[in-house]
Amino acid sequence: MKARIFDTTLRDGEQTPGVSLTPDQKLRIAVKLDNLGVDVIEAGSAITSSGEREGIKSIVSEGLSAEICSFARAMRIDVDAALECGVDSVHLVVPTSDLHIEHKLRKTREEVKATAIDAVEYAVDNGLLVELSAEDATRSDYNYLKQVFNEGIEAGARRICACDTVGMLTPEKAYEFYGGLTQLGVPLSAHCHNDFGLAVANTLSGLRGGASQAHVTVNGIGERAGNASLEEVVVSLYSLYNSKTNINIEMLYETSKTVARMTGIYLQPNKAIVGENAFAHESGIHSDGVIKKAETYEPITPELVGHKRRFVMGKHVGSHIIRKRIKEMGLRVDDARFEQIFQRVKALGDMGKCVTDVDLQAIAEDALGVLAEKPVELEELTIVSGNKVTPTASVKINVDGSEKVEAGVGVGPVDAAIVAIKKSIMDVADIQLEEYHVDAITGGTDALIDVVVKLKNGDNIVTARSTQPDIIMASVEAVLGGVNKIVSDQKIKESEEKDKT
Amino acid sequence: MKARIFDTTLRDGEQTPGVSLTPDQKLRIAVKLDNLGVDVIEAGSAITSSGEREGIKSIVSEGLSAEICSFARAMRIDVDAALECGVDSVHLVVPTSDLHIEHKLRKTREEVKATAIDAVEYAVDNGLLVELSAEDATRSDYNYLKQVFNEGIEAGARRICACDTVGMLTPEKAYEFYGGLTQLGVPLSAHCHNDFGLAVANTLSGLRGGASQAHVTVNGIGERAGNASLEEVVVSLYSLYNSKTNINIEMLYETSKTVARMTGIYLQPNKAIVGENAFAHESGIHSDGVIKKAETYEPITPELVGHKRRFVMGKHVGSHIIRKRIKEMGLRVDDARFEQIFQRVKALGDMGKCVTDVDLQAIAEDALGVLAEKPVELEELTIVSGNKVTPTASVKINVDGSEKVEAGVGVGPVDAAIVAIKKSIMDVADIQLEEYHVDAITGGTDALIDVVVKLKNGDNIVTARSTQPDIIMASVEAVLGGVNKIVSDQKIKESEEKDKT
Repeated sequence: MKARIFDTTLRDGEQTPGVSLTPDQKLRIAVKLDNLGVDVIEAGSAITSSGEREGIKSIVSEGLSAEICSFARAMRIDVDAALECGVDSVHLVVPTSDLHIEHKLRKTREEVKATAIDAVEYAVDNGLLVELSAEDATRSDYNYLKQVFNEGIEAGARRICACDTVGMLTPEKAYEFYGGLTQLGVPLSAHCHNDFGLAVANTLSGLRGGASQAHVTVNGIGERAGNASLEEVVVSLYSLYNSKTNINIEMLYETSKTVARMTGIYLQPNKAIVGENAFAHESGIHSDGVIKKAETYEPITPELVGHKRRFVMGKHVGSHIIRKRIKEMGLRVDDARFEQIFQRVKALGDMGKCVTDVDLQAIAEDALGVLAEKPVELEELTIVSGNKVTPTASVKINVDGSEKVEAGVGVGPVDAAIVAIKKSIMDVADIQLEEYHVDAITGGTDALIDVVVKLKNGDNIVTARSTQPDIIMASVEAVLGGVNKIVSDQKIKESEEKDKT
Repeated sequence: MKARIFDTTLRDGEQTPGVSLTPDQKLRIAVKLDNLGVDVIEAGSAITSSGEREGIKSIVSEGLSAEICSFARAMRIDVDAALECGVDSVHLVVPTSDLHIEHKLRKTREEVKATAIDAVEYAVDNGLLVELSAEDATRSDYNYLKQVFNEGIEAGARRICACDTVGMLTPEKAYEFYGGLTQLGVPLSAHCHNDFGLAVANTLSGLRGGASQAHVTVNGIGERAGNASLEEVVVSLYSLYNSKTNINIEMLYETSKTVARMTGIYLQPNKAIVGENAFAHESGIHSDGVIKKAETYEPITPELVGHKRRFVMGKHVGSHIIRKRIKEMGLRVDDARFEQIFQRVKALGDMGKCVTDVDLQAIAEDALGVLAEKPVELEELTIVSGNKVTPTASVKINVDGSEKVEAGVGVGPVDAAIVAIKKSIMDVADIQLEEYHVDAITGGTDALIDVVVKLKNGDNIVTARSTQPDIIMASVEAVLGGVNKIVSDQKIKESEEKDKT
């Protein structure tokens, strides 16, 4: 089987509660999707708003390779809005279950069918390719459903789509259900929702049954529990079914990131294929296995989907990873010392902490009897801010024994403090703040805040964290922790180079 | 089919990179799981660390109804650690694929089998119930796999488990694979990983095939893409397969929240069953349908799993919801005015914003020509903070024309500012900050920060937001927006009551 990918990230995906994309964001995502290789881009629902039409029009003007489609209810007014945007096709949706017909539309089956057929004819007469779609198809009377499709095809619909609107199919039912509809003789789409976590499996079963096109969204976003996830469907087809799509698989991770950033719907780390942990390993057994041979605990390589492998240190960490890291820090430890370090990392894990580079360095240096050197120490930090005050910070910092005082301003007090610190240590290190991450804070304004930073100085990249109820102090201490690690690393390197000469 | 639920949240789930639970957190989750009704709690892997053993012991001492199990590699040393904790059973794991045997263990099939049988005998002799588990079973030689199981059963293993370690099963293969293993005559567990997004579907197919127990984790957490999600498996069995488990389904949402909070692994909003959007509706078509009859767009009621329905206002919002909200605000609008309000809400959506209560109120009042009254206005805010300064804020606020000046201290500057504001408006409203939410901040220290607050004053609950690069100003303005809404609501109520008398 070879499946066409009908992407509805910009329509069903955008219906995710809380998500609204600007016309410009829609266009940027559409370009990404086109590069990714989707066959159809459902760019939106033209009737929604003038901004929505503006977005669809700009996508149409871009001259992409993909077919550009608009959602439309089976009504002339919706078709007119789609025509105004100049799309190639409409995804023309008509509810077919009695539940929807009677309770939502308050009409009869005959009325609904007549409206649908009229809308198909109207769209076809106006030159649109019509994919006729049955909403709540899986809870519809099967004979009525087929009747609507048959008459729609006679009226000119070129493709049909059956929606599992509330996600009630199972893989075995999906196989039967979509299989039965292939008799109608036109290309068939599977459109599955994820209310029970089965959207991907149902879509794959629908394709096995004979559907030729899958309706999917990037990251599986959509109303309620969302839709079938593009990346899971495509990679399952590739790896488990040896089936082809037109998708450039190595762009999946990047596309996922773009959609997450623009919609603000961030993924849980264990999201399959594209989650931050999809190729991350912590436990000793797993890390050890992956170092020896990646296939032991990775079904596909991260590179296949444009992702990266990551090892994380925590309570379940194995000795292999710790040994590797310590070596990279330029420290030499004997077996007894190593065991001591290893146990202390584990103990930190028992306390509910995951272990950053700075934590490991501190533990290792302590075990080696190296004085836990802090070349840079904060003596004083003062910030002033408010609605009529430019956020201002002053720092007094001890750098290698000499005192430095600097001040900085920023867009807010955190920014001002970091600016002041960067200035004050300029002589010893020119650090770049590569990543600044604060976890979502939910609770009160006195909740603990966990700040993790990634700092860069030349080739050296270091992570550090601090957890405190004050976001400014947490940010400052995380940065200073990282700065100390960078300055220490630099000294080690310098003394090693001196040893050589 | 009736399935037993073997919960491995505290073992496979805790192996999620970055997650480390303290012994106390483990105990609290175990109690939740026991109340939820799981049949087996895999409390951890006793060999991991002393903290891990402490956690397992405290769970054992709690005298829960569930069977308490420890993970163990097929080694006497691991069984000893489990014995030390006093667990009921061990989940004894032996790799059976050549990939794992040759590359990870660097042993032969015979050696591995001999070790496994020895460990089974040792555990059984010491009074443990043994569930013998084959790691990477789905990539193993089927005959060798069955041989290991058969000899393990002869040696005293009472249950067997076949792990799809890298998630490569498909639903149809899972049905065959687990079906074949039922011949061995002892209870069989399905243990599926989610690398392709198929863990839940594969687990359900395994149960259909004849497995009697499902290995699952709350929220589907676990190494890489995680494990089969408890809530999805259980609710699918209940709703789609008419099958029973011992789970108290109405506790699923609450349990999910507890696990998310303790592990720090927050869910994406569109997570099935327990995500924040699982029963949220934005688009006009959906909201309208749900108001008329919930089944149109909800496969199960939110109450069934202890969750709540939510309507969200945004670009796709329908007129029904806006009308409902405006009525609740005590505003009376004619059709022309309503259309004007509705279009402005849509326009806000086109700008990429979702619409809070305060936004809607402002739009509605503006359309009605009501002077957008702001009873409470910030004149001056000054904060001072630092490492040697108690975070302090002073505010000058105009409340109904009279000036109030107050100061407050807090754990950080945000907290201090909110304390000062609460004091200054005490005479007009005694607000409670019910929820304070800052989205994860990733990027630089100058990134835009979106603060959403939920405030309560008696029965009145109001949401408000502000988006700015300065976290203090964003927090203050969100709170003040909410305060103004509350004070206005209060005035409307008072004048309505006066009208009545």
